[in-house]
Amino acid sequence: MTTETTSQVTFGVTKQTSEHEARVALTPEIVTRLGKKSVSCLIESGAGLDAGFADEQYAAAGARIATRDEVLTGSTALGFIERPEGEVLDKIPKGTWVIGMLSSFSDKEYVASLESRGIVGVAMEQLPRQLSSAQSMDAMTSQNSVMGYKAAVKAADEYGAFFPMMTTAAGTIRPAKVLILGAGIAGLQAIGTARRLGAVVTAYDVRPASKGEVESLGASFLDLGLDFSKGQGEGGYARELSAEERAAQQAAVDSKAAGFDVIITTAKVPGRKPPVLLTAAGIDGLHTGAVVLDCAASDLGGNVEGSKPNETVTTERGVRILGMPSLASEVPATASNLFSRNVADILTHFVTEAGLKATAGEELDDALIVSGKPAPAAPADAATERTDQK
Amino acid sequence: MTTETTSQVTFGVTKQTSEHEARVALTPEIVTRLGKKSVSCLIESGAGLDAGFADEQYAAAGARIATRDEVLTGSTALGFIERPEGEVLDKIPKGTWVIGMLSSFSDKEYVASLESRGIVGVAMEQLPRQLSSAQSMDAMTSQNSVMGYKAAVKAADEYGAFFPMMTTAAGTIRPAKVLILGAGIAGLQAIGTARRLGAVVTAYDVRPASKGEVESLGASFLDLGLDFSKGQGEGGYARELSAEERAAQQAAVDSKAAGFDVIITTAKVPGRKPPVLLTAAGIDGLHTGAVVLDCAASDLGGNVEGSKPNETVTTERGVRILGMPSLASEVPATASNLFSRNVADILTHFVTEAGLKATAGEELDDALIVSGKPAPAAPADAATERTDQK
Repeated sequence: MTTETTSQVTFGVTKQTSEHEARVALTPEIVTRLGKKSVSCLIESGAGLDAGFADEQYAAAGARIATRDEVLTGSTALGFIERPEGEVLDKIPKGTWVIGMLSSFSDKEYVASLESRGIVGVAMEQLPRQLSSAQSMDAMTSQNSVMGYKAAVKAADEYGAFFPMMTTAAGTIRPAKVLILGAGIAGLQAIGTARRLGAVVTAYDVRPASKGEVESLGASFLDLGLDFSKGQGEGGYARELSAEERAAQQAAVDSKAAGFDVIITTAKVPGRKPPVLLTAAGIDGLHTGAVVLDCAASDLGGNVEGSKPNETVTTERGVRILGMPSLASEVPATASNLFSRNVADILTHFVTEAGLKATAGEELDDALIVSGKPAPAAPADAATERTDQK
Repeated sequence: MTTETTSQVTFGVTKQTSEHEARVALTPEIVTRLGKKSVSCLIESGAGLDAGFADEQYAAAGARIATRDEVLTGSTALGFIERPEGEVLDKIPKGTWVIGMLSSFSDKEYVASLESRGIVGVAMEQLPRQLSSAQSMDAMTSQNSVMGYKAAVKAADEYGAFFPMMTTAAGTIRPAKVLILGAGIAGLQAIGTARRLGAVVTAYDVRPASKGEVESLGASFLDLGLDFSKGQGEGGYARELSAEERAAQQAAVDSKAAGFDVIITTAKVPGRKPPVLLTAAGIDGLHTGAVVLDCAASDLGGNVEGSKPNETVTTERGVRILGMPSLASEVPATASNLFSRNVADILTHFVTEAGLKATAGEELDDALIVSGKPAPAAPADAATERTDQK
């Protein structure tokens, strides 16, 4: 069932190993897509199984099924959901391109280690998201969108009553009142999904622009009676608030929260401790049976005081706080298809007839490549090009 | 916080004890409702906690919080989600009314044991559902409706891809194809909920009338190319098919099933082994990642061959079969509110100034009361009445 191609570029993907990761950086649909660009694919046997993709599907699409070591050593470029570390990194030959979320903003040591190994690091978190040519490469957006959908579905499943209003012979069931804190990509998707299910949705975000976005989806914007103008940070993310602003915001959110049945918090800030959006005081005001879902739960803390990653904390009063930092991974087929498409579009951006090539001075290339950068253009010359091939 | 009333009738509810049961037969909202009919309520401490109702909420609504024994021995009538057995039954005094699903169709011994104890058994499953005055008492309908909603939400949560179609920068996500087998109350609610979430829904039922009902909800009716006319059984339930019909139906459903991502089966037949609607051959045709949710899974078997109650079976190919026989209990607040309203309306039907009273010859009373029946009317007299009070 394997297909041999004469392509210059081989793209390889291994199975993710961490406990809460079911996604895969290459799906059968994208194998087909890459085949049309003369990129051949190499995938570790069983890599897609947790996401719902069998080896036969990859083979049918034209990929070659291989062992982990074959993939790591036999690829021009490797794609990762989670960046390679330790043993895996040690096996990757010099000159290989590594595409993934590399935490390059916060972890300069990691970037240096790629550089010293002669690995070309393509850091997806560095994508200039405002470029229209970069839209289809934007994994942050695609994965946060999946996260927001899943947060609403998960909350509906966890909440002990209906989301929709329903009129029955045994009386009318009132719709659930859902509050979404953080109205970025994930929050907006959570609003849309909770509304699909019939909940009455209110949302809040510190960015002034978000009010219009929230209302255009048919949700109400939570009026805290506070002014956090100039809330928009770099790259479209919420900036960190000052200590005073945080205190005022917390007090206001905490007091407003009491009226809701379900609260979903989505304010992840990449590479940083997430801001607290709901404190213990806010939790105390919630009714028995209320559900709080914290998408930013982490070992450093989350958006909700007392949340724990991958755990459910139940308060004495019977409020459940769900720490769910890996929600995109819990819709693994859709999340993988989108991520895989993002990676593939980045990869094909660098594909030439002579293999992979980055150009110094080209905006996307300068931003994405964090190690093994091409040499800058000589003054008299046109752009100097870096060419790799295997 | 307790309220003393001078009502003749005390309605008592204890905490359910079985592992998969989070519902409670009395909610604070219904305490208030019964209070208006001069029925006072007695509830075991903590009885509502799993359903999201705290003791204080019951007390605030006017109920008295008590121990289990106090409830069992101090009530005119007792309401149960699951019928009382063993020790619990032993504690219930003679003359007490017991309202609940008593399995009286299939378990005549149980009814005889109530009779010998002098307990008035009010069997909710005997409700003449066609009477318009009985609509608000119909726990079968209310609980199946909750089950259908939850089946769709649960399936959306378990399925590894999106239910809705979505157009993103990284490509278009096609909607999930969902098949609902069994289009009774539960099936119709599952159709509605899966459609709310954006799935493309197809459904099937052996009752000829169901085609129109399915289509009126915007779903397609699965055309098996078979004729099971006269499929409607007594009481609105699907009749059992003949062996030949079942074989033909299975073969057809099994072959059609292959095109679907998610299959939900809802054909519970009260007191009997559920019909098989999807065999191992049908499961074999499903793609890796497909999800099958069997609401009828039981120790006697379910609608899906190989399903196990309260377990997830994953096939070699990566198809997951979820056996979920207690879905109504997994939306415990809504399910309890509706069930509690059903019980309360049955109870108040029998409430008079002199206590609880059933009348021989009255259609509802004759149907519902399975033990401790009132004496039939004497030929010359008006209806003889049974009066109990505590």
